[in-house]
Amino acid sequence: MGAWIPGLAGVVAARTAVSRVDGTGGALWFRGVPVQAVADRGFEAAAALVLDAPVEGLGPLRVQAFARQAGVPVPSGAMDGVRALVAGAQTGSAAELIAEVGVAVGRVAAGLAGRPALVPDPALSHAADVGRMAVGRPLTAAEAEGLDAYLCTVMDHGLNASTFTARVVASTGSDAVSAVTAALGALKGPLHGGAPGPVLDMLDAVGMLDRAEPWVRAELDAGRRIMGMGHRVYRVRDPRAAVLERAVGGLHTERLALARAVEAAAEAALAARHPDRALRANVEFYTAILLEAVGLDRRLFTPMFAAGRVVGWLAHVAEERATGRIIRPASEYVGPPCT
Amino acid sequence: MGAWIPGLAGVVAARTAVSRVDGTGGALWFRGVPVQAVADRGFEAAAALVLDAPVEGLGPLRVQAFARQAGVPVPSGAMDGVRALVAGAQTGSAAELIAEVGVAVGRVAAGLAGRPALVPDPALSHAADVGRMAVGRPLTAAEAEGLDAYLCTVMDHGLNASTFTARVVASTGSDAVSAVTAALGALKGPLHGGAPGPVLDMLDAVGMLDRAEPWVRAELDAGRRIMGMGHRVYRVRDPRAAVLERAVGGLHTERLALARAVEAAAEAALAARHPDRALRANVEFYTAILLEAVGLDRRLFTPMFAAGRVVGWLAHVAEERATGRIIRPASEYVGPPCT
Repeated sequence: MGAWIPGLAGVVAARTAVSRVDGTGGALWFRGVPVQAVADRGFEAAAALVLDAPVEGLGPLRVQAFARQAGVPVPSGAMDGVRALVAGAQTGSAAELIAEVGVAVGRVAAGLAGRPALVPDPALSHAADVGRMAVGRPLTAAEAEGLDAYLCTVMDHGLNASTFTARVVASTGSDAVSAVTAALGALKGPLHGGAPGPVLDMLDAVGMLDRAEPWVRAELDAGRRIMGMGHRVYRVRDPRAAVLERAVGGLHTERLALARAVEAAAEAALAARHPDRALRANVEFYTAILLEAVGLDRRLFTPMFAAGRVVGWLAHVAEERATGRIIRPASEYVGPPCT
Repeated sequence: MGAWIPGLAGVVAARTAVSRVDGTGGALWFRGVPVQAVADRGFEAAAALVLDAPVEGLGPLRVQAFARQAGVPVPSGAMDGVRALVAGAQTGSAAELIAEVGVAVGRVAAGLAGRPALVPDPALSHAADVGRMAVGRPLTAAEAEGLDAYLCTVMDHGLNASTFTARVVASTGSDAVSAVTAALGALKGPLHGGAPGPVLDMLDAVGMLDRAEPWVRAELDAGRRIMGMGHRVYRVRDPRAAVLERAVGGLHTERLALARAVEAAAEAALAARHPDRALRANVEFYTAILLEAVGLDRRLFTPMFAAGRVVGWLAHVAEERATGRIIRPASEYVGPPCT
């Protein structure tokens, strides 16, 4: 047995055909299809691509999930609520669980806003209906399209911590409900990433276009990091940022100009200070702008992330099951003497 | 990046002071204390040892958990029920979560038996009260003592898959409710182990003392394995089997003589066929006898396992949090070409 590998960094724990991340070139593919082309397909077709299986009947399944969730008490805390709602799902085909998570986001949204939950409309697309339930009013076509692009873009991203959690649970032979519930718990953690709320707090703090540059400089001088810039994997601009920036284009948002100014100021300042590191906008940066433009409460950003990422979790669950092998690493004992 | 390591076998993913497993010598310690001595302390003191922190107020916390769980619908499937009930817990001190899991076992038991759930009795010990709620009647002193020893014995066992799941979730900075809920999902998986139900099915099939030897021989001739014999780690008799065998001693059980005959026949036959492998009774073997003697429905064996193991999960959650580092291994892309 070797030495402890903190965070299992660099250890290859799974083989996957779901997504490929090229951190150096700044590219991302789902089963060989570039992320922009995946987003262009729309949620239902993108989910079928990622799952390598048809995804049908999401509309009626949302109605069914809504009825099942109706009796479940929701703890406070948005992700706690989604976890509690999904944990009681009964069987768990992939389509059922995609519907369950989307409906749970709507239910939690209603609780946060202090209004009754909207009943799903099975005639709408998944993105349009989940967005409607989460925002509390019908989305415009541009909003639904923007949200759809977002949900597609975040469906998968290699072996992040929540996806790995889903695989570990699935590796025991457990069911998809257990795996997705576990992944929701991991996604809740602040170190997981993908939580774009702080980007909006930052834009609030900057306030005006001409304050972008001095604000960025002051933050860096104070030793703080700029939200939404830089990524663990990407050495160039996060390819998802481009997809989201394009999707934001169709939406009415006053933030976009400010966001671009902050991005430009941050890139320039970071390049001057860390010429060796390429700190560019990541997925969270334009996610924040997009989800805000759709009208989503920022407390619902992580739940909405889950509504897209659940597709990837389920694809990894299927892959992991096919290995037939339990994931069970070793530990090193460092406690009191044993005699 | 190296090659895929199936199951992460042999990879050291964590340092722990909670338990040490000596597979060669057949010994197990919790924070330096031998497992028999841990069981002798009783559940409350054993939990405090494993958690390295006081565990107080379990009685009132069971009452509080019962009230909270009262409104939660329970899906069918015993572990699905426990998962759904615990997933809605609100905060999650260690003592609260120990109480939540124990009460969930009682609630699920009532559902399986088609009777109303018994209200917790805060004056009882945790083992006596959880056993009472799970069996549906007050336990005798010997039964409560036997169940207490069982719960202590299974509190921790290195980095098994459910414990690893709890650590991965905790590594993101997520909360203990999320980590325990995730671990429950992993424990449900048939590859996890610790499910002693099949041992009883085997004893049912053997039926009588003098059939033990021919039955074992016939099974091995047919290429089937003997339930409850052999362990991934232990090369000798599982040290937990001895603790449980002793605990069974105080209980009225007609199975014990039969179980000992099957164990002896299986040991002899396996030693003759596999002299290189030491296939001896594991924890599941005497767990089955003990939990049956207490009067527990075998569908509740895995939930009752969780009522003990939750203590170890929580100890590992605390350890993992202290590292401040996310567990995020890598994956190898094996999908379609990306261009």
